[in-house]
Amino acid sequence: MATPPRIPSSTKPVVALAASDVGQRASDPLAAGREVILFDNAGVGRSTGDVPPTIAGMTAHAMAFLDQLGIGTCDVIGYSLGGMIALQMVQDRPSIFRRMILVGTAPRGGEDIMHLEKPSLAKRIQDPTNRGYDVLKKIFFTSSAASQTAAEGFVQRLSQRKEDRDPPSGPNVASAQTAAFREWETFKGERFADLREIRRPTLVVNGVHDEMIPVSNSYRLSENLPNAVLLTYPDAGHGSLFQYPESFTKHTTAFLGSDSESAVF
Amino acid sequence: MATPPRIPSSTKPVVALAASDVGQRASDPLAAGREVILFDNAGVGRSTGDVPPTIAGMTAHAMAFLDQLGIGTCDVIGYSLGGMIALQMVQDRPSIFRRMILVGTAPRGGEDIMHLEKPSLAKRIQDPTNRGYDVLKKIFFTSSAASQTAAEGFVQRLSQRKEDRDPPSGPNVASAQTAAFREWETFKGERFADLREIRRPTLVVNGVHDEMIPVSNSYRLSENLPNAVLLTYPDAGHGSLFQYPESFTKHTTAFLGSDSESAVF
Repeated sequence: MATPPRIPSSTKPVVALAASDVGQRASDPLAAGREVILFDNAGVGRSTGDVPPTIAGMTAHAMAFLDQLGIGTCDVIGYSLGGMIALQMVQDRPSIFRRMILVGTAPRGGEDIMHLEKPSLAKRIQDPTNRGYDVLKKIFFTSSAASQTAAEGFVQRLSQRKEDRDPPSGPNVASAQTAAFREWETFKGERFADLREIRRPTLVVNGVHDEMIPVSNSYRLSENLPNAVLLTYPDAGHGSLFQYPESFTKHTTAFLGSDSESAVF
Repeated sequence: MATPPRIPSSTKPVVALAASDVGQRASDPLAAGREVILFDNAGVGRSTGDVPPTIAGMTAHAMAFLDQLGIGTCDVIGYSLGGMIALQMVQDRPSIFRRMILVGTAPRGGEDIMHLEKPSLAKRIQDPTNRGYDVLKKIFFTSSAASQTAAEGFVQRLSQRKEDRDPPSGPNVASAQTAAFREWETFKGERFADLREIRRPTLVVNGVHDEMIPVSNSYRLSENLPNAVLLTYPDAGHGSLFQYPESFTKHTTAFLGSDSESAVF
């Protein structure tokens, strides 16, 4: 991978939020130019405690973590579940983020969020020939040769870390996260009206063939957030950021490097 | 505006296709680094002849123009109507374009294409207080203060050219173009299946509040073209490329500067 440009150290740290360390690993190249804080939420990875069954509960933990570190403002990369936590955080405390990157995620009231039981996903998840990271290659990428080649590179990067690896998540984690996704699909009042109050510059990223959190959710984010640029990747699923790591690093570095009040970069 | 990076002169020329010179003016900054060919199709601007009532008819003129110049392959920026012509050109002759940029446009079978009679547009177009370029400021931009400020900059850039300006288009142009839009909304067989055969790297750009050719058409382009990146701009309408000229130049220059077989840049 190309070395990303150096960023002045005066920039804010980036907190990376995701459901597991798989998501957080995408942040490694960004950390070449700025401080990146990887956060394992309660009950996930190497953090103790129980996974709350709501985004609000997860948000409270993330906020307490930043408060304990004394971080009043930071940038954020929220991937998948982490993007929902980021959205809840900025609604609870609008000053918490300078710039936001939301990847493969959905607004409250979004549709078809992580229904792993639907046939198109279930057949891939439950394939008995899956070994090790095979399931991630099947659900984060498309079936094209190019996407599967990128998946191989992704798995090799995952395997670079030999120590302090996150333990696998158990069934309690999955059931609590699923409950949180189902609650996040509900909404009161006017759908997506909450997004219109979020003024922070935002970059929304997704693969056009994301079957876990469909790209329509990213469309609703960029249409309703008043200050959001949308970037979608071709021939890519939920793991678009892992499929095109050089491009993702280039665009996110340019976006985070801007001091404009506008998301446009 | 910032000076765009210099591009090696060995690159292919870019042909800019649009319904009028208003669209083509967005290509000026790109021309700092590469050859840009502005094409007034038959019956438009300073070209003689009659405007054909179909995209196919306009495509035949554009193809004849490139053939006459001896240009076997070029890049293309197709804006609005010009994007439809570009799509038809690459279907008729797949080798005609190296890379494609499609801005504020729609695939065959797209929806709500240039219905200037709908109330949200008609009230702005027919506003009797409009003077000069006022109507463009109202229909190409949003009503926000930031968008209207950008509109003012756009009008100033339009006014920079003092000689060889395009004459205003008459009612015959509008009626033929409208007929072409209506025909382009129709489709036979499986909707958007034609897009899946177009392998050229493509960058699709739109404003999320485009009321002339809604952004849903850009979603269908990027979902069905197998090799397309989508970029959408916030608080922007049909004239998103005019509202954010620096960003548009930066991204299109990076996209055109790539020699990859992939649209991802």
